[in-house]
Amino acid sequence: MQTSETSLADLMLDMGKRARAASLRLSHQTAKDRSRGLLAMADALETSQGEILKSNALDMQQAKQKQLSDAMLDRLLLTPERMRAMSDAVRMIAGLPDPVGQTIANWTVPSGLDISRVRTPLGVIGIIYESRPNVTADASALCLRSGNAAILRAGSESLNSALAIATALRSGLEGAGLPADALQLVGTPEREAVGHMLTGLDGNLDVVVPRGGKGLVERVQNDARVPVIGHLEGLCHIYIDTDADPQKAVDIAFNAKMRRTGVCGAMETLLINEAIAPRVLPVIAAPLREAGCELRGDAQAKELMADLISATEEDWRTEYLAPILSIKVVKNLDGALAHIARYGTGHTEAIVTENTSTAERFLNEVDAAIALHNASTQFADGGEFGMGAEIGIATGRIHARGPVGAEQLTTFKYVVRGTGQTRP
Amino acid sequence: MQTSETSLADLMLDMGKRARAASLRLSHQTAKDRSRGLLAMADALETSQGEILKSNALDMQQAKQKQLSDAMLDRLLLTPERMRAMSDAVRMIAGLPDPVGQTIANWTVPSGLDISRVRTPLGVIGIIYESRPNVTADASALCLRSGNAAILRAGSESLNSALAIATALRSGLEGAGLPADALQLVGTPEREAVGHMLTGLDGNLDVVVPRGGKGLVERVQNDARVPVIGHLEGLCHIYIDTDADPQKAVDIAFNAKMRRTGVCGAMETLLINEAIAPRVLPVIAAPLREAGCELRGDAQAKELMADLISATEEDWRTEYLAPILSIKVVKNLDGALAHIARYGTGHTEAIVTENTSTAERFLNEVDAAIALHNASTQFADGGEFGMGAEIGIATGRIHARGPVGAEQLTTFKYVVRGTGQTRP
Repeated sequence: MQTSETSLADLMLDMGKRARAASLRLSHQTAKDRSRGLLAMADALETSQGEILKSNALDMQQAKQKQLSDAMLDRLLLTPERMRAMSDAVRMIAGLPDPVGQTIANWTVPSGLDISRVRTPLGVIGIIYESRPNVTADASALCLRSGNAAILRAGSESLNSALAIATALRSGLEGAGLPADALQLVGTPEREAVGHMLTGLDGNLDVVVPRGGKGLVERVQNDARVPVIGHLEGLCHIYIDTDADPQKAVDIAFNAKMRRTGVCGAMETLLINEAIAPRVLPVIAAPLREAGCELRGDAQAKELMADLISATEEDWRTEYLAPILSIKVVKNLDGALAHIARYGTGHTEAIVTENTSTAERFLNEVDAAIALHNASTQFADGGEFGMGAEIGIATGRIHARGPVGAEQLTTFKYVVRGTGQTRP
Repeated sequence: MQTSETSLADLMLDMGKRARAASLRLSHQTAKDRSRGLLAMADALETSQGEILKSNALDMQQAKQKQLSDAMLDRLLLTPERMRAMSDAVRMIAGLPDPVGQTIANWTVPSGLDISRVRTPLGVIGIIYESRPNVTADASALCLRSGNAAILRAGSESLNSALAIATALRSGLEGAGLPADALQLVGTPEREAVGHMLTGLDGNLDVVVPRGGKGLVERVQNDARVPVIGHLEGLCHIYIDTDADPQKAVDIAFNAKMRRTGVCGAMETLLINEAIAPRVLPVIAAPLREAGCELRGDAQAKELMADLISATEEDWRTEYLAPILSIKVVKNLDGALAHIARYGTGHTEAIVTENTSTAERFLNEVDAAIALHNASTQFADGGEFGMGAEIGIATGRIHARGPVGAEQLTTFKYVVRGTGQTRP
């Protein structure tokens, strides 16, 4: 069912106003209220499992008719087991520390004013995502944990599943005495709905979080008139220094590339110091190749291993998300830093070395959300950082950087307590 | 001299590239280097005083020919005394704590990784401002204190003064061994230069800070394709609660309105509880009126003081920046909060009350960068907050909120130290 452009605008604006009203109501709730709401959301997912799976079957049927790839179909599919994982994730978020109202800093100034910096919700968060249905529950739960109202826009392939999930979550919220409008899902498939969100729904949307492929994120970053917390690309490098422990280099490189090749924290380019390369590169390469990883090298790397495929300029710019690795031999730390400055995407960068001062220079100078010493880039994850859950890894420099958990979905205000002070 | 559109684009892009290169060079400098650079900038302002005053005289002459208002002419004027204040401000910033490299948080996760959140510069900051020449020095100094490169765009009326100041500052930087390109001023008056900055100079500009009137800030917020840290309006309210101490109410209201009427932290609307209004409103009004403040009231206020001018809907929406005050009688705290939620601009809001629980509810629920209890709204100022200096008061919710000092011009990265960890 298509909606006319005018009525779509009205519909979206109405959604924004309801979200703002819900966000104000949420500001009266306590952390306990939010936890109760989250547990009720998890329960509601379980009691609505039948309807949700039925809606998912409809999405799957349409997806098969559209001949989506097997990978896409797998991402779309819900099973009782995946439903269980979804409600477990919401329960886990219910158990996370609540960031709202935390005092980040407190000091007194000469005028006698007592100043506190206190965490507050951002307000209304718009989340635009692609096919995975579990994002509907994850994102909703993180927004509620941080006191925010959410407007969700799911991919059209998963719209029926997302609607069924959102309906369940809303009934859970309502049952727990929280405003159902704290969580709204755009119910129509029109592409223009995204455009309305990106212009801010007349001041009723405070920030947009795109979660999906590069195309989606770029569109959102280009068109948004509201701030964006976005994750663009993870073109992660590991630099093997001349003072690297060879065994650590082998283990970390293998894990960073092959543990899961499709995640944003996977290593895409290996940089290796020319002094250590003749001895260590073949040792690093062997298990990777054995595990089915395609290896592409620059001229210097090919001198050491003639059977490498020649890497082109394009390789240094490519986030493969696949079992492919580009390899470049560099003169020294400066060469590694220069390559990363040119081709890195500000996500996660690592160095393997036993030399502390080399490590500290790398950690200090490399420009990335996450800088690692002697550890796999696959640790780039909110869970591994102890945040419990994340909505993505932000690659921008503003507001949130790195894993975006509940805390990163807050802002703060200054609460100032006086005793009648006037300013001279 | 006009620049053709193509060559302007090239010129701006070149500026962006130089700024990025300077920002990378700055990342190798220490806090001490930055302090030395700042002191050299202050010295250079003094040794170049003659040239700067000459350039300012040229701006003044053209401004008079254009028949700018006396207020505008006064803002534009430089004197030896004002030059002294300018170099003193830069020296003061040289003495502020340097935020770069500070560890904000540190923890260890079960995998054994040691995680630190460390402050880093934002990168390249674009600052777009209007006529006051001292902003050229203030903004440059705050950007350098926080390790950022700056691209400045001054108002056309003050371009000669700004260029002379920037030339002096750059020579100071260079003399101290820091890259002069860490500070660049757009040297041409074309309006299109701003457009180029707002599209991010091909990824070489990380954030834009507009500093000026509402028109400028709105244009920047609407057109920017890069994040904006902006200060829109300060329509500040004070709510006089039924449990207010009358003397504090009188003193705070007078100071908040009249200390300086043209600042963003000035009170524009007084909200007063209906239970206390008959007794206290006339006492608050008398000294304001005596000091020349025009008083406008809603119907209920006029019942108490018949000689008030009638306030219209427009009054509740107006940041007067003048000796005018709108007054509204409200039923209770909820009435005050509802009025502020509707008309407030998220800048600074205050309550006067001796009732702690009423105060805490106000501080918690009011949506503003700064929420005050028993103190004048004119304390909304980075200096009064102990930040030393500020580039403005941010009214958005993303990244920086409230006074924007050196610390707010930084971001952070996660520095993760391992011992060879791979992710299971």
